This record gives sequence, structure tokens and C-alpha cells, in this order.
Amino acid sequence: MTKKHRNGEIWEFEREMSGGAEGGGVGDVILGIDGGTTSTICVCVPFLPPQSLQFPDPISLLARVEAGCSNHNSVGETAARETLEQVMAEALSKSCSNRSAVRAVCLSLSGVNHPTDQQRILNWLRDIFPSHVKLYVRNDAVAALASGTMGRLRGCVLIAGTGTIAYGFTDDGREARAAGAGPILGDWGSGYGISAQALTAVMRAHDGRGPQTKLTNSILHTLGLSSADELIGWTYADPTWARIAALVPVVVSCAEAGDEVANNIVQHSVKELALSVTAVVQRLRLCGSDGKASFPLVMVGGVLEGNKGWGIAQEVVNCISKDYPGVVPIWPKVEPAIGAALLAWNFLKDSHKE
Amino acid sequence: MTKKHRNGEIWEFEREMSGGAEGGGVGDVILGIDGGTTSTICVCVPFLPPQSLQFPDPISLLARVEAGCSNHNSVGETAARETLEQVMAEALSKSCSNRSAVRAVCLSLSGVNHPTDQQRILNWLRDIFPSHVKLYVRNDAVAALASGTMGRLRGCVLIAGTGTIAYGFTDDGREARAAGAGPILGDWGSGYGISAQALTAVMRAHDGRGPQTKLTNSILHTLGLSSADELIGWTYADPTWARIAALVPVVVSCAEAGDEVANNIVQHSVKELALSVTAVVQRLRLCGSDGKASFPLVMVGGVLEGNKGWGIAQEVVNCISKDYPGVVPIWPKVEPAIGAALLAWNFLKDSHKE
Repeated sequence: MTKKHRNGEIWEFEREMSGGAEGGGVGDVILGIDGGTTSTICVCVPFLPPQSLQFPDPISLLARVEAGCSNHNSVGETAARETLEQVMAEALSKSCSNRSAVRAVCLSLSGVNHPTDQQRILNWLRDIFPSHVKLYVRNDAVAALASGTMGRLRGCVLIAGTGTIAYGFTDDGREARAAGAGPILGDWGSGYGISAQALTAVMRAHDGRGPQTKLTNSILHTLGLSSADELIGWTYADPTWARIAALVPVVVSCAEAGDEVANNIVQHSVKELALSVTAVVQRLRLCGSDGKASFPLVMVGGVLEGNKGWGIAQEVVNCISKDYPGVVPIWPKVEPAIGAALLAWNFLKDSHKE
Repeated sequence: MTKKHRNGEIWEFEREMSGGAEGGGVGDVILGIDGGTTSTICVCVPFLPPQSLQFPDPISLLARVEAGCSNHNSVGETAARETLEQVMAEALSKSCSNRSAVRAVCLSLSGVNHPTDQQRILNWLRDIFPSHVKLYVRNDAVAALASGTMGRLRGCVLIAGTGTIAYGFTDDGREARAAGAGPILGDWGSGYGISAQALTAVMRAHDGRGPQTKLTNSILHTLGLSSADELIGWTYADPTWARIAALVPVVVSCAEAGDEVANNIVQHSVKELALSVTAVVQRLRLCGSDGKASFPLVMVGGVLEGNKGWGIAQEVVNCISKDYPGVVPIWPKVEPAIGAALLAWNFLKDSHKE
């Protein structure tokens, strides 16, 4: 099925192109893919010779293609592969390039957690590209880190959106993660965690188990409900994690308005997020033997976005720096797909050195 | 549909009986029904004249019939009614009685939370029984309370199984509840709450966010898993609340073996359960104006069962009695369906007094 597609429609443009006016296209390229549960993004960037010290800033994009989910756990192996092959072909076609111009591909995919996942996808990828193309398959946290470190795989990335996970990497190839086990298993620092605690606080204020809070009016008003009792029906009618996590801005604005209950929830989230990072830093000794060495901490996801002025990210950093003064926070200027492309280029450079 | 059933199969036995050797049966009776999400139980007990001070102990049962779920939220209105009608008919048939011998019926049903639910079920029930039969429809917590107070509707009942709820009633008809909003909305004292916190503690010990705990080996061994990473798959493969709550005995035994993490979880549950009760007691002033009046606290559900020797129930009582020394804990000797029958008898007595 996939083979038929490959030799058929998907890569059709290559034959047309080789006979067309454009000739050999734009020179060698690199593909970076960020494949997540919500969307899949593929970028095509020009290849720079390994002698170059670093990519120009801003990076020139030849093409950027977006598609739906490519998490094999969510949509199955076949659909995930088709989406990935489609975005890569489209990105090359838009760049007036083709597979033989590709020097390296980095697929950074959510749901890829074990070496067996990695190998399966590598085998499939090997079948698509000519043998000289360097191929890399990693977890999606890797692209998020690389988007902040310009492709260097060292340091820690903290992702906090609907869910949360901290992932760390060392120069000598060691990795560690903390949290990321979902809401039942206690990711309290996540957007879902913040919102679920806020909903709980409303129920507790309502039945006398907890103090009154501005969260009650704010959340009921946001959801168009008239009493706290109705929250039970609202919650269980569709307990999708992202639907509940969407209440984070309400919680943050109550905290900013001086509500103590909301503030405690936000502070608890800050501590939990900081703890995920320090657990990873500790295990990998990212802070050096004296605990003071500097290391990059890349911050990604809605809860940590600096431009919203929530201050959660800055408080997480303050909390971490009490134990590890060498922490260097980074809010990436480029998206994870570009991080994946930078990573591919760095891998390629390293392989030339060897 | 229901009407056809009623005049047809379900009540068929009555016609056979009136022509049979038994004649008028056993005299007047009362039906008590405890309708829950897991099962529905109907008991038929002999009616005592309203002059009697109290039911004999032990209560003589004419019949006891068990069936499946009768929570209309779970199985729908039609199926719930069919189950309820079926158990009442069977209980009367087994008692060699019939509908005209019934003096009162008390349906205590989970999922009945609003007066509109109550009225809808009363209307339907009115259609089944002759007009002289007294009918009562209440929430299932009511039968649980009555099972401990021998039918008197005053005091507080604390239910803690997979979920948890505290429900209080005063002599003058006021009611209040606390908790009971399910796991997303923070019922941390419940069996589910205890287990989810234990699973979280295992994940935290595993990734360095929390201290090591005996819970890791005990839970992995119980579930037949070989590493904490596998817990994620196990949890989300089927996050049914009862499946997770089934780990409570493991947590309790780790706490008893001196594990601090497990002990903290159990202590947290104790505080949460006590808080549900004190919130209800406070709102209803069950403790009198001086806070020292005595009130019954009926303890129901797996987490509070005294015979397991877990001591959770006793610790909850100790915790409550610090604020309300008049608390009188009761572990019911009869099941909630009998509580419902006792309640019906008490209502009947009270209506005679008026």
C-alpha cells in the first residue's frame, strides 16, 4: 500500500520536475519533522556545508507544510506513515527539490519512546530515501529542546501545555525524563492539572470543605453555568484533557487578581514543574559535580509561554535556580520542526568529524 | 411497554396466588429498595402497627431479591424501571404476598438528586401500586444512613468505596452533602483517590521526583508488571474508577508495614473524609449550638469497613471528634435495602402522628 503510494501519486512530482524547466532544483536540503498528536509540521531548509559554524539567523525556510496527527498510538501505524510521507513529499515539491537532494531527515515524533519504535520507523524511512541520506528518528521532546539550543542536544526541555514532561540530554548521550505520565498519575503542573485543581476548589468552596474563591464566579461565567452543582455534569459530559486545560487563563487571571486559592494552585503548579526539571538535572548531573555548572532549560507549551505575561515560566526558573544557579532559561524563537532540521544538521556535522 | 409488562408477565403471580391455596398471604408488608449502579436489592418485611416502638432485632425478612443496575443515568429510564418493577414483583411473589398487601414502599436510588427525578419516579410508582400504598423515593445515601439509625433520618452518613460522599439530614428536613463529585473534581478520600495517589507516588519515586516507597514493589507485583514505566500503559488501558480503587488494600498494607509514603496517603484520605463530614455537620449544625451535641455518623463502603482492620474509619472518627466530640460512629448491622424498609415504616408512623 505504502509502496504503491510512493512509486505512485505521492512522489509523482519528482518525475515531472526532472523533465521540467527547474532542472536540479535548489541544491541540497534538510528535512525536519515535528510529528505530534494535534498536528505534523515538516520544514525544508537549505543544507549548509559541515564546515559552517552555525545556521544563519533567521533561518531561511524553503518550505513549510502542515498536516494532522502522526502519533502512531493515536491513529495507527499506516495513517501515521501516510501523513509523514505526504508532508515530506509536499515540502520537497514546494521547495522545487526531490529526494536525491536530501542530505538528512530528522523525524521527531510523539509516541516514539522505545528503541523498537525508533527502529521500525527508521526501516520504513530507509525504504523511501536513497541510501546516502542520513536518517534520524527521535521523540518529539528532542525537537522541542533543539528548537531552543539551535540543534544542540544537551540540557533540559520542559513542556507544559495540556500535559507536562521534562526531558534531559547529556553530551555523552544519556537521557532522563520526569512526569509525562498523564493526569491520573499526577502531572499536577500541567494545564490539565491546574484546571482540575481549580474545579476542585470550586466544589470545595461550594460544599463547605474549602474557602470561598473568585474561581467560582469566573469559571461558572466562562462556562455559562449557573451553579457549582452544574460543574459535575459539565466535567463528566466530556472529560477530554484539553477541554479542561482550556481553563488555565481563568485560573491565572484570578491569581493575578489576588485570589488566594487560585494563587496557591498556580504556585503548586510552579513547584511541580520545577521539581520535574530538578529531578532530571539531578539524575543526569547536568549541573556538573559542584551543582553550579550552567545548562540550558528550554521552555515550551501554553503554560510556559512568556508572551502571555503569566509569569509561571519565570517563577519556575526562579524556583530551579535556588538549587541550580547555572540554569539558563530559553524561550525558543523557532518552532520544533526547525529544531528537528537543526538537529539533523548537527548530527550530520558530528558524523563528518568522526 | 411498562404497562404491558405490568398487566402481563411481571405481576402474573398475583392472579395465580389469589386463586391458590395460600389465600391472602402473610399479612401487610413493606418494601425497601436500594438501587445502585452495581446492583439493586429489594427486601420485603412484615408491616408492624405504627404503635410499635421499634422493629424487632434482628428483623425478620420475608424475601430478599437482587438484580443489576437501576441507576437511570447509567442504563436509562426504561431499563432502570424494568429492573425496579421486577425486583419488587419477585420480592412480593417470594413472600407469598401481593401489591394490595403493601403498606409502604421506599425506593432509595443512586442518581436521584433533584426533586424532578424524584417526582418522575413517584408518578411511575403511583401507577403500579393501589392508592392506599405510601410511596417514598430518595437518594441512595438515605438508605445507607437509615441502615445505621434503624430508619431514623437524622445525622450524617459517610460513604467511602470507589467514590465518596457525605450526606447529612436534620429532624426538620434540611439536607446537605459534601464531596461526591468524582475523581476529576477532587474526591481524594475515596478508594479511587487513595489508589491514584499511590500510583502517582510510584511514578514520582521512579523518575526522582519523590522518595522511594514499598508501594512500587507491592503494586507492580499485584498487577504483574515489571517496571514503573509499564504502569502508564496499565492505567490508561482502562481507567475505570473501580479497577484503580481495587488497589486500596495494597496501599493500606504498605502503610501498616511502616512505609511513610503509603502512610501519608492513608492519612490524607482520613483528613479528606473527616473534612467531608465536618463540612456537612457544620452546615446543618448537627452538633447543636454549642458544638457538643451528639449525632450519629453512619460509616458505609469498602474503605470504612471495620472488619478489615484497616483502622481508616476509626481514624476518621478520631479526627472528627476533635472538632465535634458528640460524634457517635455507627457501622450498620443491616444492609441499605433494610434501611430503606425501616425508613418507609418510620415515614408511615410519622404520617399517622400528624
